[in-house]
Amino acid sequence: MDRGRLEAFSDGVLAIVITIMVLELPRPEAPPGHEDLGGTWDSFVHTPNLIPTLVAYVLSFVYVGIYWNNHHHLLKTTHHVTASIMWSNLLLLFWLTLLPYATGWVGEYPTSIAPTLLYNVVLLATAMSYFLLQSRILVAHGGKESDLGEALGRDRKGWSSLVLYLVALPATFVDPHISQALFVVVALIWFIPDRRLEPVAH
Amino acid sequence: MDRGRLEAFSDGVLAIVITIMVLELPRPEAPPGHEDLGGTWDSFVHTPNLIPTLVAYVLSFVYVGIYWNNHHHLLKTTHHVTASIMWSNLLLLFWLTLLPYATGWVGEYPTSIAPTLLYNVVLLATAMSYFLLQSRILVAHGGKESDLGEALGRDRKGWSSLVLYLVALPATFVDPHISQALFVVVALIWFIPDRRLEPVAH
Amino acid sequence: MDRGRLEAFSDGVLAIVITIMVLELPRPEAPPGHEDLGGTWDSFVHTPNLIPTLVAYVLSFVYVGIYWNNHHHLLKTTHHVTASIMWSNLLLLFWLTLLPYATGWVGEYPTSIAPTLLYNVVLLATAMSYFLLQSRILVAHGGKESDLGEALGRDRKGWSSLVLYLVALPATFVDPHISQALFVVVALIWFIPDRRLEPVAH
Amino acid sequence: MDRGRLEAFSDGVLAIVITIMVLELPRPEAPPGHEDLGGTWDSFVHTPNLIPTLVAYVLSFVYVGIYWNNHHHLLKTTHHVTASIMWSNLLLLFWLTLLPYATGWVGEYPTSIAPTLLYNVVLLATAMSYFLLQSRILVAHGGKESDLGEALGRDRKGWSSLVLYLVALPATFVDPHISQALFVVVALIWFIPDRRLEPVAH
Repeated sequence: MDRGRLEAFSDGVLAIVITIMVLELPRPEAPPGHEDLGGTWDSFVHTPNLIPTLVAYVLSFVYVGIYWNNHHHLLKTTHHVTASIMWSNLLLLFWLTLLPYATGWVGEYPTSIAPTLLYNVVLLATAMSYFLLQSRILVAHGGKESDLGEALGRDRKGWSSLVLYLVALPATFVDPHISQALFVVVALIWFIPDRRLEPVAH
Repeated sequence: MDRGRLEAFSDGVLAIVITIMVLELPRPEAPPGHEDLGGTWDSFVHTPNLIPTLVAYVLSFVYVGIYWNNHHHLLKTTHHVTASIMWSNLLLLFWLTLLPYATGWVGEYPTSIAPTLLYNVVLLATAMSYFLLQSRILVAHGGKESDLGEALGRDRKGWSSLVLYLVALPATFVDPHISQALFVVVALIWFIPDRRLEPVAH
Repeated sequence: MDRGRLEAFSDGVLAIVITIMVLELPRPEAPPGHEDLGGTWDSFVHTPNLIPTLVAYVLSFVYVGIYWNNHHHLLKTTHHVTASIMWSNLLLLFWLTLLPYATGWVGEYPTSIAPTLLYNVVLLATAMSYFLLQSRILVAHGGKESDLGEALGRDRKGWSSLVLYLVALPATFVDPHISQALFVVVALIWFIPDRRLEPVAH
Repeated sequence: MDRGRLEAFSDGVLAIVITIMVLELPRPEAPPGHEDLGGTWDSFVHTPNLIPTLVAYVLSFVYVGIYWNNHHHLLKTTHHVTASIMWSNLLLLFWLTLLPYATGWVGEYPTSIAPTLLYNVVLLATAMSYFLLQSRILVAHGGKESDLGEALGRDRKGWSSLVLYLVALPATFVDPHISQALFVVVALIWFIPDRRLEPVAH
């Protein structure tokens, strides 16, 4: 199988996921009985959940950008696409398509436990699918002793993200804002793209 | 005509179909008179049809993934694109665009006969369009005696899916869950990509 | 400018247009006071405008398919992309993005004059933009005496579609169904892709 | 990193942004108590905000077209993609995804101050991200003394757009229509694609 079409399809799904999230933003609306406030900053600021949804949108946008970037670097090291690479890539895309949904719910109830847990679960499952995809590519290209395996090394960024997602799960029950701060920390860790893979890519 | 743009357009449609299905997922909402339950797992679990729609979404996601994968393998064997290949490809895409709609209705009424029948009809029509596309490609590349024709052989997977879809039609009237189980069986049959085509592809 | 990215962007827009039209299909709903009919064929058949919207969707899907196909053939003859080719291509895409909107309104009021007129205007403007794009490509490639100019010849299909759209405008005031029948006739005329361009393409 | 996939992803996002804006257009609806007007031009013309939203849609469509075109020319001069080029490109895409949202609000309240200000802010932030992307590409390709740097020269179009957006900010408080006229002026300035970059592109 050919890497080009796997990249094209993944790019398509990621581009749609990153763009349809904006459809979750609630339109500013005047409070009932104050229709004269329509189209004012007051209606913008007081529309329930507009500001939290906007903040959640920014974070999710950054996450999709990070995944797109790392996915791009990872696939550049992939010479042949096996069935298990194809299906773990689809699993990764599946979890990413749930991100707009989880983003919308967190934006609606930013201080509640359940939506932050759902967002946490989606991020954790996405990260685990990425690990799976990475390991399938490693297996198909000579394992840990290969160039790619050595380039990944101990994969500190990947493991520390996973640990932070797991810490965030119980932390949500204390205060959802602790978990949300941890998601920002993970985003900052990954903000700089994975330079380890660059020398292996071709 | 050039295969590349047919692949790019099909990839675009499939990527959008697989991603907009998530827009069918109902947002968790508090039951009327219990607005204090907003943002809780209770509201998530009790939102009518959220769980069945999520299950239907997973199944449809897998189906689109299977079609994308097989479509990719089939087109790799295609050297020149005739008008009839182009139109049978569009027919296949047409039926796939109806999948999100049918998925939403099944998710809303998982135990009713009509939505499962509609889902069944869409899957059956998609499978028949795929058969048509395959036969148009065969005709344009030398028929059953060609490399592609021999690689396809008796096409057991294709024919058994068709039989299962046809069995599911009357079975829905007994119990829609029988048909839904049959759709899962078909997905499992196709889960492993069609290795027969790999040696012919270039 | 490079033809490849113009094709990729146009493919993206056309793929989205053809796929989001399905979002216009109304979900089957039980008539008020008959909630027990939810999930039945009765609710499917009696949901206002579901069947006409489905029919309008099929027609619009075929139209976008035809434009995609002809666009593909036309651009294959294009060696260099000038600013006026780029902008007339965007004008064509602009009118095509309005097709889902017009489709939704015709599906809602299939026997009213205004929605059919709007659909007619969108089809007419799309056809005129295609003519404009074609003429800009002709000008950039040596005019009517060029290979492309000769291949297009008297462009009977293009002109007869334009005449039929113009006839449909007053016919709508007699009966919208006459115009709708004319739109089907135009689709049938174009169903077979434009073979004239094939020998010039490279 | 490879330029091709950056272009493909950007094309995907821009194609989706330009197409989903049409989902902001309100469906024509009969005024309450006048259901017999459904499907008439009266309902079309009197649907609140349909005409202003249509006008705002045309302007935003032209803006996305301009950005797509200039982005295409700019990236053609880019030989290697650094992390900072990748992230400033994502920042540009982020602001462009907010354009449909701002377009919908301006269309709903075309004579109010706040929506026009929001639209202004989105255009300004988009322009500044484009400047940032351009400067990151310049830095990675030899600075102002390079071919690209000389081709950009004093970048009159870029700076005059920025000045007009800044003038529009206070002008909105006098009358939002002054700012809206300035947005049209900027679009006209950019309508002709940036010829400066063409000789450097390869």
